[in-house]
Amino acid sequence: MPQGKPDHVPADGLTTRQRRDRPLVVVHTGAGKGKSTAAFGLALRAWNQGWPIGVFQFVKSAKWRVGEESVLRTLGRVHDETGEGGPVTWHKMGEGWSWSRRPGTEADHAADAAEGWAQIRRDLAAETYRLYVLDEFTYPMKWGWVDVADVVDALASRPGRQHVVITGRDAHPDLVAYADLVTEMTKVKHPMDAGQKGQKGIEW
Amino acid sequence: MPQGKPDHVPADGLTTRQRRDRPLVVVHTGAGKGKSTAAFGLALRAWNQGWPIGVFQFVKSAKWRVGEESVLRTLGRVHDETGEGGPVTWHKMGEGWSWSRRPGTEADHAADAAEGWAQIRRDLAAETYRLYVLDEFTYPMKWGWVDVADVVDALASRPGRQHVVITGRDAHPDLVAYADLVTEMTKVKHPMDAGQKGQKGIEW
Repeated sequence: MPQGKPDHVPADGLTTRQRRDRPLVVVHTGAGKGKSTAAFGLALRAWNQGWPIGVFQFVKSAKWRVGEESVLRTLGRVHDETGEGGPVTWHKMGEGWSWSRRPGTEADHAADAAEGWAQIRRDLAAETYRLYVLDEFTYPMKWGWVDVADVVDALASRPGRQHVVITGRDAHPDLVAYADLVTEMTKVKHPMDAGQKGQKGIEW
Repeated sequence: MPQGKPDHVPADGLTTRQRRDRPLVVVHTGAGKGKSTAAFGLALRAWNQGWPIGVFQFVKSAKWRVGEESVLRTLGRVHDETGEGGPVTWHKMGEGWSWSRRPGTEADHAADAAEGWAQIRRDLAAETYRLYVLDEFTYPMKWGWVDVADVVDALASRPGRQHVVITGRDAHPDLVAYADLVTEMTKVKHPMDAGQKGQKGIEW
């Protein structure tokens, strides 16, 4: 819940409006829940603004994100049929560039992740979307499959007003240093502590 | 991203499935971003399961949640028209029980919040919804407008398999103690630190 007044006003030569409308790089990291759900919550706001949304799902299991994918695809269909909201494109590692739960070596997985990132880089340069959800994208950087310096460079040089949300644990310090908004989700208490496994409708 | 194995298995007489499917009370608190967006992200998963969703918006400005409300209402309409997903009901303080941005004394606001809570209590007893999003509901408890002991009592005695998500800063310790899943959203970095105010599509 943001307050209306910034702590200070920088001498950056921008008007309040220009400064306010600068595109953001948002990072949701930490060991707690809510990193991806909050990113998809942001996608709802973007859809309502009519923004084109690109989701890139760097995620380890086909079960994850089935709820979000279903809803975002439904919202994309509503847009196509009625013109309400924005168009939605969902890119999934499982379709062309998944790295997990299929036969494959680590080299394959790294190549898949690099291929996904190359697509994002092209889309940023082409201003394909207004909001990018790069779900669980911290991991390919952590594992060295995608070069964090290359990511920061592509983000810093992206044209226009494209917002980018990146989720996942252990966000690289260079990414955190570059990002505009970084939130750490911290676990206070989790049902698994009491022996309860994940359930549908809550975890996926 | 939950792992498959709980840390330990309690001697509670439940099967793994019974324990897994226990209804949850989820709290998103802390001073960082993402508390409400993550709650609405959970609502996407619930919708995809076909669950009836009740949103109770204890929120201070008409501008907040316009994106989420638009999308959830669209999803509710899709359900009504096609049977996909679940039905959605959106309760807003601004329509009958808002406490802010209108003339009124603090006593009015407290009464409005208490009225909203009384409705939730009735809905819990009647099993009206499968997922409740009580957005910014920590504040009425913090300010003493709603009795936290009454909230915990109603949650503890709710029948069936109703999940409840509560968002807002400064969650009461008794609520945290009762909840199953508590995440604290911590601000690492915020654009307002650099003099940037909130913008549409991101903050609402």
